Amino acid sequence: MAAEPSTGSDTARLETFADGVMAIAITLLILEVRVPPTDGGPLTTKLTEEWPSYAGYVVSFLTIGIIWVNHHQMFKLIGRATHGFLMLNVIFLMTIAFLPFPTALVADYVRIPDDRTAATVVYGLTMIAIAVMFNVVWRSASRGGRLLVAGVDQAGVDRISKSYLGGPIAYTVATILAFVNPFLSLGVFAAMALFWLLPSSGIQFASRVGES
Amino acid sequence: MAAEPSTGSDTARLETFADGVMAIAITLLILEVRVPPTDGGPLTTKLTEEWPSYAGYVVSFLTIGIIWVNHHQMFKLIGRATHGFLMLNVIFLMTIAFLPFPTALVADYVRIPDDRTAATVVYGLTMIAIAVMFNVVWRSASRGGRLLVAGVDQAGVDRISKSYLGGPIAYTVATILAFVNPFLSLGVFAAMALFWLLPSSGIQFASRVGES
Amino acid sequence: MAAEPSTGSDTARLETFADGVMAIAITLLILEVRVPPTDGGPLTTKLTEEWPSYAGYVVSFLTIGIIWVNHHQMFKLIGRATHGFLMLNVIFLMTIAFLPFPTALVADYVRIPDDRTAATVVYGLTMIAIAVMFNVVWRSASRGGRLLVAGVDQAGVDRISKSYLGGPIAYTVATILAFVNPFLSLGVFAAMALFWLLPSSGIQFASRVGES
Amino acid sequence: MAAEPSTGSDTARLETFADGVMAIAITLLILEVRVPPTDGGPLTTKLTEEWPSYAGYVVSFLTIGIIWVNHHQMFKLIGRATHGFLMLNVIFLMTIAFLPFPTALVADYVRIPDDRTAATVVYGLTMIAIAVMFNVVWRSASRGGRLLVAGVDQAGVDRISKSYLGGPIAYTVATILAFVNPFLSLGVFAAMALFWLLPSSGIQFASRVGES
Repeated sequence: MAAEPSTGSDTARLETFADGVMAIAITLLILEVRVPPTDGGPLTTKLTEEWPSYAGYVVSFLTIGIIWVNHHQMFKLIGRATHGFLMLNVIFLMTIAFLPFPTALVADYVRIPDDRTAATVVYGLTMIAIAVMFNVVWRSASRGGRLLVAGVDQAGVDRISKSYLGGPIAYTVATILAFVNPFLSLGVFAAMALFWLLPSSGIQFASRVGES
Repeated sequence: MAAEPSTGSDTARLETFADGVMAIAITLLILEVRVPPTDGGPLTTKLTEEWPSYAGYVVSFLTIGIIWVNHHQMFKLIGRATHGFLMLNVIFLMTIAFLPFPTALVADYVRIPDDRTAATVVYGLTMIAIAVMFNVVWRSASRGGRLLVAGVDQAGVDRISKSYLGGPIAYTVATILAFVNPFLSLGVFAAMALFWLLPSSGIQFASRVGES
Repeated sequence: MAAEPSTGSDTARLETFADGVMAIAITLLILEVRVPPTDGGPLTTKLTEEWPSYAGYVVSFLTIGIIWVNHHQMFKLIGRATHGFLMLNVIFLMTIAFLPFPTALVADYVRIPDDRTAATVVYGLTMIAIAVMFNVVWRSASRGGRLLVAGVDQAGVDRISKSYLGGPIAYTVATILAFVNPFLSLGVFAAMALFWLLPSSGIQFASRVGES
Repeated sequence: MAAEPSTGSDTARLETFADGVMAIAITLLILEVRVPPTDGGPLTTKLTEEWPSYAGYVVSFLTIGIIWVNHHQMFKLIGRATHGFLMLNVIFLMTIAFLPFPTALVADYVRIPDDRTAATVVYGLTMIAIAVMFNVVWRSASRGGRLLVAGVDQAGVDRISKSYLGGPIAYTVATILAFVNPFLSLGVFAAMALFWLLPSSGIQFASRVGES
């Protein structure tokens, strides 16, 4: 036998690694919520002024959480992995692991009028990159059904592919809004995170595959 | 076949992700125990003055550890996951991953008389949020037995549901105590963490399911 | 059926959680190796002066790595877990997750003559706590063979129990040496980490169970 | 039975631990991309000046990602683990977990003419250490086929061993280039990371075992 055993349905270690990176990125978000220095004013005032940090924590946490759920659902349909597919997942994870940076950037700069648009755009571009890579990973696996588990029909694949396009489009619209009004843009990002939480939401970042 | 395979008893990846977030949150607690600056006074004095950091590390570590054990036990009874259930778990994990922040807050502000009540209340509210979400996750899974493994009877479910209510109630009482005396409140949080460690403790954050 | 399914041989989730905490604690060690500020002197000088940080990284990394290997071997013999056993593991993990703090403490204070003994003692006490809890976990599982897999004989258990005692004793001796000479003490900790790496070392933190 | 059950094909826990360390090291890279202080100049200028941090994040993320993929492929051929093999993996992981430090070092010092060669050399030496340890791990497992799964022939092993030598050689060349021109050296590290991403790249850090 040559040194090339079949990869078979071996996506387990990829899922474990992806879960690890997403679990760490989501938990590192708390490091950006900083304890205020003990001098200068009552703590209640200082904590109230820190609201953008808490809001950023919640919105980014929910967003990574939603992506994790959708990644989880997507991989129920994927049964094999090639070298190239693993690499696309690494790039996808690179965009997710980047999210703590723009989250902290927005929290720090949202109160600086001259800079809040730029900070929001960096946040939005990161979200677009995540959503685009999510689509690239799915299309790489589903193109011609080459990495899917047996028994997934083309109509189902097409329906999922179409539903996944909602993410990049919605995030692009929200990012463009930052040039009109960064608060409106951030509000839309927050609203999307809350909306996608709902089990009955019609438009979704990803279709709810696997739920009866 | 349509693109909706049954989720069956697939809670493995949820448990892995939850374990990952809890393992990271519990380990990040050490980042809040800071090495004192090398100037100014002997190290032994500086280390002794840092006692609130060590106490906070121990109490929050034990608390997340106890929650992990109970989550572990709870999931022995849960056999399936829906989209909405995954999302509730994400919100539950969001409350746990937040704990390093109020832990550091209390460690820094416990010696500032004007602020120690506020810091303790933030700590208490986080603990209440964790305990409430723990109950929400359980009730979402057990309502009508819809996500439970086969063979769990309603009487057992009711008994567990009732025992889980102890957490939010105890943490609410401890938080209210902060307005009377923050040290007393923190002492109660510490006592609860130590008490729930005991295998024979009568009142528990969660009943010891699965132990004969 | 009542809501108490048998735990059976369910130590998988405990091993996953323990691996997670150990993997995170070992990787967080790098956060204590700080990039020197860009002003003041050539980089090569500043990097050379930082040698205690590199040494601390290597010794603590190898130590946690050795503990992980031994934990891994120990759990090949453990087949079940009770509530109390899970809690003992949480306390064991609390001592390991603490190690990045004394590692950074020693790196910062080793060049301050008045403080280097205190810093070394804190490091040593942490190592003793880890080794003691490792023994406590093992004895809790092996006492009367109550949590062991079938087929482990008492003679084998006794031999392992005895070999595990080497850790606390060796670390206690190394810690006491800090009062004589902290450099000698740290050298002994480093030597032990390197010695236990060797596959043929006679004295071990834990016997090499499971290797033929 | 004595207390030495066969390890059999038990590399699962090693793979989980290695995946954990690599997932954490790769995600910690974002902590080195710092939010600029809110005072002094427009945000867009400050973000543009921070380009070495982003470049370092991307190159080091892709590098760890590629190593993870190759580690993943290597372990498809490895079926058993000894104490010594686990220890070699711990040392291998120690080199990977170190990477966030030289990444931050290069990002901070690349614009300081007198120091950029030294910073690049530290980065290069870390990469060489990773690649050397990757080879050591493989050779330890494959020497005489002692830890390999059944059915791997010697010709396949020799071909893989040879292909793995490309990593240390390429990184050594890139590191030596730092003495000529550090930007050229860093460009070569970036080019290698991008090149190894390609599924059809001829030279590889590791052969693409397991792909048909």
